[in-house]
Amino acid sequence: MQPKPQIGNLPVYQPGKPIEEVKRELGLDQVIKLASNENPYGSSPAVKEAIQAELSQLSLYPDGSAVELTRALARHTGVQDNQIIFGCGSDEIIALITRAFLVPGDENIMADQTFSVYKSNADIEGAVSVEVPLVDGTHDLSAMLSHVNTKTKIVWICNPNNPTGTIVSEKELTAFLDRVPGHVMVVLDEAYYEYVTDSSYPNSIHLLSQYSNLVVLRTFSKIYGIASLRVGYGMGQPEVIRLINQVREPFNTSRIGQAAAVAALDDQDFVHECRTKNTAGIAYLQNEFKRLGLASFPAHGNFILVDVGRPSREVFELLLQQGIIIRAGFAKYPTYIRVTVGSQTQNETFISTLEQVLRLEKAQL
Amino acid sequence: MQPKPQIGNLPVYQPGKPIEEVKRELGLDQVIKLASNENPYGSSPAVKEAIQAELSQLSLYPDGSAVELTRALARHTGVQDNQIIFGCGSDEIIALITRAFLVPGDENIMADQTFSVYKSNADIEGAVSVEVPLVDGTHDLSAMLSHVNTKTKIVWICNPNNPTGTIVSEKELTAFLDRVPGHVMVVLDEAYYEYVTDSSYPNSIHLLSQYSNLVVLRTFSKIYGIASLRVGYGMGQPEVIRLINQVREPFNTSRIGQAAAVAALDDQDFVHECRTKNTAGIAYLQNEFKRLGLASFPAHGNFILVDVGRPSREVFELLLQQGIIIRAGFAKYPTYIRVTVGSQTQNETFISTLEQVLRLEKAQL
Repeated sequence: MQPKPQIGNLPVYQPGKPIEEVKRELGLDQVIKLASNENPYGSSPAVKEAIQAELSQLSLYPDGSAVELTRALARHTGVQDNQIIFGCGSDEIIALITRAFLVPGDENIMADQTFSVYKSNADIEGAVSVEVPLVDGTHDLSAMLSHVNTKTKIVWICNPNNPTGTIVSEKELTAFLDRVPGHVMVVLDEAYYEYVTDSSYPNSIHLLSQYSNLVVLRTFSKIYGIASLRVGYGMGQPEVIRLINQVREPFNTSRIGQAAAVAALDDQDFVHECRTKNTAGIAYLQNEFKRLGLASFPAHGNFILVDVGRPSREVFELLLQQGIIIRAGFAKYPTYIRVTVGSQTQNETFISTLEQVLRLEKAQL
Repeated sequence: MQPKPQIGNLPVYQPGKPIEEVKRELGLDQVIKLASNENPYGSSPAVKEAIQAELSQLSLYPDGSAVELTRALARHTGVQDNQIIFGCGSDEIIALITRAFLVPGDENIMADQTFSVYKSNADIEGAVSVEVPLVDGTHDLSAMLSHVNTKTKIVWICNPNNPTGTIVSEKELTAFLDRVPGHVMVVLDEAYYEYVTDSSYPNSIHLLSQYSNLVVLRTFSKIYGIASLRVGYGMGQPEVIRLINQVREPFNTSRIGQAAAVAALDDQDFVHECRTKNTAGIAYLQNEFKRLGLASFPAHGNFILVDVGRPSREVFELLLQQGIIIRAGFAKYPTYIRVTVGSQTQNETFISTLEQVLRLEKAQL
């Protein structure tokens, strides 16, 4: 039984360590997870109500076309129903795009430190990934453009970029889109879109009508707080969405996920409140980092990449011992850790623990 | 933007019509859906409790490795943890197998009337599907074997077969497995496994230890009654499971789905009860079909394929007008409809409506 030649030894995705696992392994009662950019405020109360209403229908297949959710999202965003596709997280939309579009030898372009799922899926399809260095933690769109050739099928722009948290502006993006040849799909991954408050951030819905090769990804896993239920989506021109739909499994989102997403979308007050708290959390953390003499990137999502000035995996381990899970081990940023902006209490506990860990380490040198 | 050449015009999966849609379109209050082989008895009460317990953690990503569910299933089946992979329904496992193993030009073999997802996924990968005619609605394993060649990567055996409901026996299956070359993966789709009461039905878990090229698929969408939550699984040798895992998205099942599946698995009394009622339902329906002079296939799942003696789509439409949704339009069985075995009340309503519809049609001739 021969798999595709490229399948044998792909790197395996490393998710954030689950809270329960850390509690078990280290015998801790209290564990704070700031590793997966989850919403510390949970989700809208309306979500639970929507789920309760679905509990009498567990044995029924979901609506494979997610009609109700599609309509709600179309109303919310202003795009047409046939410009939307839902997935089991926006991860799945990434997988579907590669499965529909990439053949062995095709090229796709991404930043050299970005969301790992673009490359892992391109690897599965046997495509060549061109990884373009970030400049100051930010996508270098001119350099990315210079790598476009006749073999290029897709350019991935993660905005805000995970893990650096930086954004490209509408001006930079449109300058890029104006120059990219029409045969290249530009995928704008806006998983953290709802957190951004910077006025230079692109209005990508508006851009969708101007650039037929643009696809925008968003998710209900971040600010909407239903990561557990796996609902993400893609938006683009109807024909592109139709092609991606061709490789979608008929029932790729759950009935509860769809109902929860409709309810979540309907509660924009909750979204607004989370964004406000997140912005305050960023300000608090960045001030504290400054006080501790730690450099960090400008943060536009709900996470910050901060330079702890020593191998990040060591700091990861020391924080873990104290019951705090963050993310470390980014190849291009070996001395940086990525921390999710938590609640104020979580942020304060994180800062005091980090301070203690760094002081301890220094003392041991 | 060029998709893979084979993607442009794939046939789209036709799901059973949703109840709400039929109510809306036809202005009906009462609609009975016997179209998607869903469990008419819902799911175990323990499932709802398990879901309630998860509602405080909606914002957290699921455990990507589904550790707890994996352990529960390993205990239940007797296979090892590393022999199991979960998917968003067993549909997704089918997609993952094709994505990991098929390259353009590979061949895969299936029955000419079986679950459509094998072929649709093989099409996506550019593989050639060899569709071998059923004999008396049953897989013709000798004929399938005769089509195996050096290009053959996968043979799909749907057991019980959807839509005919027939099974291949352990004796027939082992005779086949003994002759199939080791380079061919044999996927045994046992979505309806828990419904089968026939003693000749294979003990596929036992066979897994004897045939390293065997992969068994099962699901929580049928007898366990949580189709809405999308949890299915595959079992095979650790190395095969590892390879399939390489193309799995990190969070392909939901937190609620995993918790619900653990609870469902734990309530085997519910499973037993549903199986008993289903067996009685099959007997009732087959007696009634006999009374009405309609031939049907031996039924081993929770559905029956029955010959209504006229174009099935006509009967589908007439039943729909009366608020009963069934499945019709099977290419190889143009005069057959597939009906899910419902509750006794649903079965009786279906039979009386079918009788009325057929009588009416006859009168109009």
